[in-house]
Amino acid sequence: MKLIDIYVKLKKDISFIEKELELSLYTDHQVLREASVHLLKAGGKRIRPVFVLLAAQYGKYDLQVIKHVAVPLELIHMSSLVHDDVIDDAETRRGQLTVKSKWDNKIAMYTGDYIFAKALGVLTKLENPLVHQIMSKAILQMTIGEMEQIRFFYHAEQTVRDYLLRIKRKTALLIAISCQLGAIAAGAPEKVANRMYSFGFNVGMAFQIRDDILDLCGTEEELGKPPGSDIKQGNITIPVIFALREGRLKDELLSELKRIQEEDGQTDVSRFISMVRGSEGIKQAEQLASQYIDKAIRALDPLPKSSTKKDLISIAHFIGNRSY
Amino acid sequence: MKLIDIYVKLKKDISFIEKELELSLYTDHQVLREASVHLLKAGGKRIRPVFVLLAAQYGKYDLQVIKHVAVPLELIHMSSLVHDDVIDDAETRRGQLTVKSKWDNKIAMYTGDYIFAKALGVLTKLENPLVHQIMSKAILQMTIGEMEQIRFFYHAEQTVRDYLLRIKRKTALLIAISCQLGAIAAGAPEKVANRMYSFGFNVGMAFQIRDDILDLCGTEEELGKPPGSDIKQGNITIPVIFALREGRLKDELLSELKRIQEEDGQTDVSRFISMVRGSEGIKQAEQLASQYIDKAIRALDPLPKSSTKKDLISIAHFIGNRSY
Repeated sequence: MKLIDIYVKLKKDISFIEKELELSLYTDHQVLREASVHLLKAGGKRIRPVFVLLAAQYGKYDLQVIKHVAVPLELIHMSSLVHDDVIDDAETRRGQLTVKSKWDNKIAMYTGDYIFAKALGVLTKLENPLVHQIMSKAILQMTIGEMEQIRFFYHAEQTVRDYLLRIKRKTALLIAISCQLGAIAAGAPEKVANRMYSFGFNVGMAFQIRDDILDLCGTEEELGKPPGSDIKQGNITIPVIFALREGRLKDELLSELKRIQEEDGQTDVSRFISMVRGSEGIKQAEQLASQYIDKAIRALDPLPKSSTKKDLISIAHFIGNRSY
Repeated sequence: MKLIDIYVKLKKDISFIEKELELSLYTDHQVLREASVHLLKAGGKRIRPVFVLLAAQYGKYDLQVIKHVAVPLELIHMSSLVHDDVIDDAETRRGQLTVKSKWDNKIAMYTGDYIFAKALGVLTKLENPLVHQIMSKAILQMTIGEMEQIRFFYHAEQTVRDYLLRIKRKTALLIAISCQLGAIAAGAPEKVANRMYSFGFNVGMAFQIRDDILDLCGTEEELGKPPGSDIKQGNITIPVIFALREGRLKDELLSELKRIQEEDGQTDVSRFISMVRGSEGIKQAEQLASQYIDKAIRALDPLPKSSTKKDLISIAHFIGNRSY
C-alpha cells in the first residue's frame, strides 16, 4: 500500500479536520484572518493530524473528540513555522510567500502567537489533564529546540548527538505526541499510547533527517524553495556533519562554510552542496533515517495485526524513503 | 492604608512567588536562562500575582496551589512584554535594556515563546478545566489585542471605543482573570470569582489609562524610559484621542502626528507632548480612570466587609492615582 492510498482511505476525515482548522482560525480581525488563512492554504502534508487519526483507531474513534487534539497539533506546528520563517528570514515556504515576506516580521510574530493561542483554546475542550501536561511539555522542548538551533548556527564542530537532540525537540516530539495523544484522546490503553509515542518519535526523527537530506539533494521545484536553504541560515544538518568527518573534504568544506557565514548566507552555495552530495554524508544520513524507521516499526511489534498497524507501517516506510 | 502596606503584609508570600518564578524559568540553556533571568530581575510590580494572592483569600488560601496560577499569570505578562519590545523596537524597559536590545529580536521572540511555554507547564499542575479555558480565552484576546495595536498605529481618527477595546485585550483581561483565577484556584464560590473578575477588569482598564497618561506626563526617571514612547511607536492613547477633539488643537496635533509618522518616530516629540499636556485630554483621561476605579470598587459591594476587601479597595485607589 502506498501513502496516497492511506490518504484516500482517510480522505473524508482529513477533509473534516481541514474544515475544523479553517473554522478554528476564523476571526473578525482582517490581517490575522488573512495571514492565517494564507498559511493554511499554502498546504502541508497534515502529517500530524493523520497520525492522530490513525492512532485514535486504537480506541473509540470519534472525530468530534479527536479533532480537539488533531487541530491543536497542526496549529502548533503552523505557529512554529511562522516564527521560524522570521528567524530564517525565509521568503517562501511550500512555494508560497511566507507571512513575514507577504506582510512583515512583526505581523508574523503576532500571527504565530495568535495561531498558538487558538491551538490552546481548542485543546481546552478536552478535560483530561494528561493531555495538557503532555502537550505543554512538548511545547516547552520545542521552544528550547528553536533557540538551540540559533546557538548551533555555523558551528562546524557540533556532534551527531547535538544534531539529534535538536531535531528531537524541533520535530520528533510533536510527531511523537500526535500519535500518543491520538490514542489517549480516543481512550486507548496506556500501553498502546506509549507504543504510539515511541513509533511517532522514531518516525519523526527519520522525517527530519529526510527533510535535511532533501534540502541538499532536492530541486527547487520539489522543495518549494531553493535547495541549500539550511546552510544559508547556518543550519548544519546531519549529512554535513558526516561529510565533515571525511579527511579529504574537511578543510575545503570548512573554508566554504566560513565563506558562507561571512557573507551571512547571501551567497551561492552550489559548491558547498556539490561537495556534500559527493561525500558519503548523504548515504550515511539515509542509513540513519532507515534505522529510525526500523525502530519505529519495531515499536509496533507488541500490537496485534490490524489494518491500522499496516497503515502505520506504510507511512513509516514512505517517510523513510520520501523524496518530496 | 497605602499600597506599600499591602505589599508589606503580603511580603512573605510575594517573595515566595518571586522564588517560584525564578525556579520556573530555570533551564540548562544559557541564553534562555540569562535572558529570562534578566527580564525577571528587571523587576515589575508583580501586580498580577498580588491580585491572585488577595483574591485567593476568599477561599482556601494554600500557596502551594495558588502559585500554579500566580506564576503563569506573571510569566504570560512577561512573555507578552518581550514580544512587545520587539514590535516597539524598545531599547529599555523599567530602566533596563530589553532582551531585544541586549541580545536581538530573534532571541527576544524565542525567549517570549519559551517563557510562555513555561507558563503553560506550570498551569497544567491544576486539573480544573475551567482554569485552562479561562486562561486560553484571555490569551487569545491578548494576541488579537497586540495585533490591533499595530493596526491602529498613527490612526488619528480612532474612537474612544477602539482604544478601550484595545486596552481591554492588552491589559484589563489579564488582570481580570488574575483576580478570578486566584479565587477559583482557592475554591472560592463562583459568585465571588465573578465579582473578582469584574473588579480586576475595571482596575485593569484604569491601570492602562494611568499608564498611558504617565507616558505623556512622567519623567524619564519615573518611567524607566523616555516619555512619549507611545507616540513614537504610533500608539495613540486616550489623552491624545481626547485632545484631538479640541478645535483649537486638532490641526496642529494632526500635523505633528503626521510629521512623527513620516520620521517613523525617530524624532523629537516634545512639542507633541506639550500640546497634549496643555489640553483637557489629560484631565479627561484621569476622570475616565477614576470612573473605572469607582466601578471596580462597586463590584465589591456584595462582598462582606473584610481586610481583603479593604486591601483590594486600597490597591484600586492607588492605581487610580498612581504616579509611577
